[in-house]
Amino acid sequence: MLLTVVYFVAITAEAMSGALAAGQRNLDFFGVVVIAFVTALGGGTIRDLVLGHFPIGWTQHPGTIYLVVSAGLLTTLIARHMVRLKRLFLVLDAMGLAAFSLIGCRVAVEMDYATPVVILAGMITGICGGILRDVLCNQVPIVFSGELYAVVSLAVCALYLGLAFCGVAEPIAIAISVVAGLVLRLLAIWRGWRLPTFSYHERWD
Amino acid sequence: MLLTVVYFVAITAEAMSGALAAGQRNLDFFGVVVIAFVTALGGGTIRDLVLGHFPIGWTQHPGTIYLVVSAGLLTTLIARHMVRLKRLFLVLDAMGLAAFSLIGCRVAVEMDYATPVVILAGMITGICGGILRDVLCNQVPIVFSGELYAVVSLAVCALYLGLAFCGVAEPIAIAISVVAGLVLRLLAIWRGWRLPTFSYHERWD
Amino acid sequence: MLLTVVYFVAITAEAMSGALAAGQRNLDFFGVVVIAFVTALGGGTIRDLVLGHFPIGWTQHPGTIYLVVSAGLLTTLIARHMVRLKRLFLVLDAMGLAAFSLIGCRVAVEMDYATPVVILAGMITGICGGILRDVLCNQVPIVFSGELYAVVSLAVCALYLGLAFCGVAEPIAIAISVVAGLVLRLLAIWRGWRLPTFSYHERWD
Repeated sequence: MLLTVVYFVAITAEAMSGALAAGQRNLDFFGVVVIAFVTALGGGTIRDLVLGHFPIGWTQHPGTIYLVVSAGLLTTLIARHMVRLKRLFLVLDAMGLAAFSLIGCRVAVEMDYATPVVILAGMITGICGGILRDVLCNQVPIVFSGELYAVVSLAVCALYLGLAFCGVAEPIAIAISVVAGLVLRLLAIWRGWRLPTFSYHERWD
Repeated sequence: MLLTVVYFVAITAEAMSGALAAGQRNLDFFGVVVIAFVTALGGGTIRDLVLGHFPIGWTQHPGTIYLVVSAGLLTTLIARHMVRLKRLFLVLDAMGLAAFSLIGCRVAVEMDYATPVVILAGMITGICGGILRDVLCNQVPIVFSGELYAVVSLAVCALYLGLAFCGVAEPIAIAISVVAGLVLRLLAIWRGWRLPTFSYHERWD
Repeated sequence: MLLTVVYFVAITAEAMSGALAAGQRNLDFFGVVVIAFVTALGGGTIRDLVLGHFPIGWTQHPGTIYLVVSAGLLTTLIARHMVRLKRLFLVLDAMGLAAFSLIGCRVAVEMDYATPVVILAGMITGICGGILRDVLCNQVPIVFSGELYAVVSLAVCALYLGLAFCGVAEPIAIAISVVAGLVLRLLAIWRGWRLPTFSYHERWD
């Protein structure tokens, strides 16, 4: 229930950040809407495809489509005021990362997938929207560039499954995992924690 | 019936234009065939995946595969003569856009999806082939760059559904929507109508 | 049986070569693991999606996930020693290409798809992992740049189907096709055989 509210806030925030990314590439209004859509709903779409979970989530909730398209278009109007809300957006994005990851886990659990697949389903839901956005904007996905982002998704999924395994009640396990993910992500931003990178420049091929 | 003829003409034209795009990137003959295939059949493939519509269309019609592969290879032979046919190709591409969009709508209608999903299915069918072509050629999709292209697809889908809702007979609704889409697209090219773009260059991340 | 052993060796080799490609882009450790995963298992995933073959292969074998993730991370430790193994990797990659192609064919045959779809399924399995890797690394797929790679996959698929059609026993048909593919690929590397490219630079759009 609370997760649903967080989910709708999160897809709105993701759609708006996707629209800004489109603006950085000078895309037209159709491009803005597509990138907003893909950023917000692309992760869940890829998860549903990989799990064979049909019909795909958003096709059953047309309201989600209107919400994402409106958020994308609205962003083009209020973009210049959004810098002031930058901190709010970082928090919403962190909340969304945690909520998307949890929702992805739960879909895979309900379909009786094995634990590593459940964790992957959570991470796909949390991260693939941003990867699709970056591929369509013709850049290497930002999530591969050292930010502590995917690791937060992994931590949320693992914590949730661990708590469930220990018999913690569902709503409490959800609340703890979302809050822990939010705190970890904001700490990583605040303290500048980064993942090490791997550089390899031998001639190989 | 007429839609089927238009469809085969359109996938041939799309495959040929995909092959030319591959030639602009100096791809090898295998790359030419892949880009031709993806440009012509990629939109329908993504639509079928998103709708959970299995088996995917072209897997049931191997003739389509031969047609697209042949069209791609043929293009490498006659490419230097094709500039003279540039106008013909613009018309065929506009026809294809309208036909693909309609076919996508109809698949989603038959599967009882809600109206916004039906329209999206039409637009995915019309546009995603070109998006996949551009992603594989490592460039930002042209369809996001201001051409009145996706909007034509949207107009065709909306007009078709509107006419069907008003009780217009199926073949007439199809004919009107295709012709209207064709006219709108050619007018947009002729008059240089463009979609506004959204530019945003604040430091955000 | 033998095909299974070759398969596991091949996905390990593909994951390691994917990790090196990620290192050439200075990706972080999460990016390394994603690129390793996608290079090794992406081809089979796309094949299963296109054929509507659910659940997708690796979701039923979590061991595959651990193997690929470990191979990717291990590569970051031993990368500087791997140049000495360059020839071994070329052989493993060629073996993997043949094995992936055959496995893809067999999945499509079991699902009663028509022959051209069976061949496409084999080629998708053999090649799409590398295509996904290159798209995520923001470059035009290497497989389109003239290497005799996709053609080897096509030859393996066609030879296998031809032998099966002539009544050759399954294990013998598999062995002959894999060996023929391996030899053809290594000959192509050794002799520098390349596919012609198609260049087209008229102003078109």
